[in-house]
Amino acid sequence: MSESHTFNIGLCGFGTVGQGVWKHLTSHRAELEARLGATLNLARASVRDLKKKRAVKVPARVLTDDPLSIANDPSIHIVCELMGGTTLARQVTLAALRRGAVVVSANKALICEHGPEIIAAAQKHGGHFFFEASVAGGIPIIKALREGLVANRFPRIYGILNGTCNYILTQMEDQDAPYAAVLAEAKRLGYAEADESLDVDGWDTAHKASVLAWLAHGVWVKTDQMIVEGISRITPADFKNAATLGFGIKLLAIISRDFAKNELSVRVHPTLLPEGNVVANVSGVFNAISVTGDVVGTTFYSGRGAGQDATASAVISDIADAASLLTHGKGGHLLGEVTTPNANGCRLAPPESIRSRYYLRLTVRDEPGVLARVASVMAKLKVSIASVIQSPADEPGAASLVLTTHESNERAMSATLKQLRALSAVLDDPLLLRIGDFE
Amino acid sequence: MSESHTFNIGLCGFGTVGQGVWKHLTSHRAELEARLGATLNLARASVRDLKKKRAVKVPARVLTDDPLSIANDPSIHIVCELMGGTTLARQVTLAALRRGAVVVSANKALICEHGPEIIAAAQKHGGHFFFEASVAGGIPIIKALREGLVANRFPRIYGILNGTCNYILTQMEDQDAPYAAVLAEAKRLGYAEADESLDVDGWDTAHKASVLAWLAHGVWVKTDQMIVEGISRITPADFKNAATLGFGIKLLAIISRDFAKNELSVRVHPTLLPEGNVVANVSGVFNAISVTGDVVGTTFYSGRGAGQDATASAVISDIADAASLLTHGKGGHLLGEVTTPNANGCRLAPPESIRSRYYLRLTVRDEPGVLARVASVMAKLKVSIASVIQSPADEPGAASLVLTTHESNERAMSATLKQLRALSAVLDDPLLLRIGDFE
Repeated sequence: MSESHTFNIGLCGFGTVGQGVWKHLTSHRAELEARLGATLNLARASVRDLKKKRAVKVPARVLTDDPLSIANDPSIHIVCELMGGTTLARQVTLAALRRGAVVVSANKALICEHGPEIIAAAQKHGGHFFFEASVAGGIPIIKALREGLVANRFPRIYGILNGTCNYILTQMEDQDAPYAAVLAEAKRLGYAEADESLDVDGWDTAHKASVLAWLAHGVWVKTDQMIVEGISRITPADFKNAATLGFGIKLLAIISRDFAKNELSVRVHPTLLPEGNVVANVSGVFNAISVTGDVVGTTFYSGRGAGQDATASAVISDIADAASLLTHGKGGHLLGEVTTPNANGCRLAPPESIRSRYYLRLTVRDEPGVLARVASVMAKLKVSIASVIQSPADEPGAASLVLTTHESNERAMSATLKQLRALSAVLDDPLLLRIGDFE
Repeated sequence: MSESHTFNIGLCGFGTVGQGVWKHLTSHRAELEARLGATLNLARASVRDLKKKRAVKVPARVLTDDPLSIANDPSIHIVCELMGGTTLARQVTLAALRRGAVVVSANKALICEHGPEIIAAAQKHGGHFFFEASVAGGIPIIKALREGLVANRFPRIYGILNGTCNYILTQMEDQDAPYAAVLAEAKRLGYAEADESLDVDGWDTAHKASVLAWLAHGVWVKTDQMIVEGISRITPADFKNAATLGFGIKLLAIISRDFAKNELSVRVHPTLLPEGNVVANVSGVFNAISVTGDVVGTTFYSGRGAGQDATASAVISDIADAASLLTHGKGGHLLGEVTTPNANGCRLAPPESIRSRYYLRLTVRDEPGVLARVASVMAKLKVSIASVIQSPADEPGAASLVLTTHESNERAMSATLKQLRALSAVLDDPLLLRIGDFE
């Protein structure tokens, strides 16, 4: 290259991910700079507490406790927002974009909540927004959807996007251990946050599903427009029942598009997957994504979805893309803030369009005639029963009734749940899981 | 976008892949053009026989039987070389690059044989060379290695890169059928070429391994610098023996780099993989690649590795990248013809550095003392035996002797084979397979 460029990088947030970016960018600098034909200068980093000791040492002069001062610093070309949260992070992101800088973000919650505002700010002011690290950590799934599979429309994308939930589910299955015990152990090991609800109730997965749905379909779907259900009501008995039926249980994000009807559905819930399904076989903290394109067929991706190193790998790839963009001019589909046009007229699928087979676990009074009453409710709602497993429940005088259905839909199952809850013989809130008949 | 660009695309070769590109580019044109902010014009296509009927109809005026006329046509911005072969394809590729055009290639044999010349021509004349379709069909593995995982060095990359071989091996295992019968059936179904040697002897996989090794390590490794062994000597009995030992058998490309010693090894051979290994569980015509990066850890990719649609998906993604490049200026690491600097001083690993456990199948005379003689040869060469399975062989008076070793190396095993061949009790050329103890 004839010209030489130096790009100043500011890290807003210098916790686990920020320190990982600093560490690996420093150790791989020679290769990266040679590839890019540019110099990467780690210029500034913001922390909450200037006095705290950190594993990764940086010169005191680069540190600040004011991330907005980095976002607004005209000498910083690439602003990495690695703080998390949606208030200050939003201010930092918008401030940097408004002065035409590149923002690299790992913040799926921010994108899900404020994506349209962020993209509009980038487009209006000539800034650029990169977010490979926001979904599935080190797996380059954003780039795959946006660039590698650009020839495709996507009838279905689904996968495991939260390593904490997958770790908990894997442990429950392997150790035959109840949810609460495994969660407590996961907290002790640092695999789950002190406040676990963002992970286990499915919200983190929903944020990521929103990002993928936007990339694949050009539509912003908010979490309150999705079915979002977590894993906390699953029991070891559900894993046993599922195994008897030939399934495993995974918390999935599922993004389905019916191109004939032009309907999109985005949902997050525990799903029974056939034992041979490749996603069903991804264990522990790993993430996995199955992407079906109308041209390429089904492709599959897996790897570490979180953690210092995997996330740093994704942030650094965005920094490299940013450096390339800044060297060579404004980016197009590769690097810019695209929306896809096939969103035209696309609507969210109504409940009766969301179809699957279902798994239903009821705790019922252990007396004759209960199955008949349950079956009668379902028959009236035209929900057809495929299999029944009856077994003793933990409580005396109660039985566990596990039913699977033939294909039905969310509207019918919602009505079914409502009527079953009203039966005096049904003792607990029924647990409804979907069966994923995916390739 | 304020400016509007039109890019003329020429397809050199209009067989299966060329027609797939035309078909899908035509049907997805609206979305692609909106994403790219550019018009994609399928301007010309070259065929061998102008009179042949084709499934995909194109206007007669776009057809030519002279691919060089497309390569040399100054109005064609993006030349797709989809002919295969290494003679005319090389001329077409070099001609287009020398006039500064973008060449999109699916031709792994050409890249493996003439890569340095092609890259040099691109660099000298300002042309650009894209080759996503050359390895693993629709799986965006080239982009993943070059861009998505740019933060990483790669201690190990391995995978299934030839769908024909994987189909044959899967059928042999599932149907307990001999190689020759499965190959004949694969030819009948169109899964194998009339001349199968490029696939089954490992050369196609070796070409792809060369491309991946260059991307990951910046070193051109020719097939005569690799261990390349095919699948034709594997028998149904080998699958049974492997299963007894807890393994499946896959034809793998394995690219290993020892960064401490600065040694690289590239090899292609049937490999025993532990049954739980995710690559071991990829069946039929699918491809699968495991990429271990020093930052991201191990990531995994699978999908269709060949065929009209999967290959077209990859070619179209390169066309999209090319359009973006041409719209926004000369590309850097994303789109250009990079070599990586960490090749400095890297040497090919000598045989004693290539270490693994081994599986050895001998057909021996069925008489006392044979195992002792075999074991004595191996002991002298310091190859330690881990397990032995003796069973009757097909021939009368013969026995099958299957040994696995503890970790050894290529030099020791090469000497072992030589000495075993010289034993009068050893009736056939021994079959040596490597065991892949990969995560």
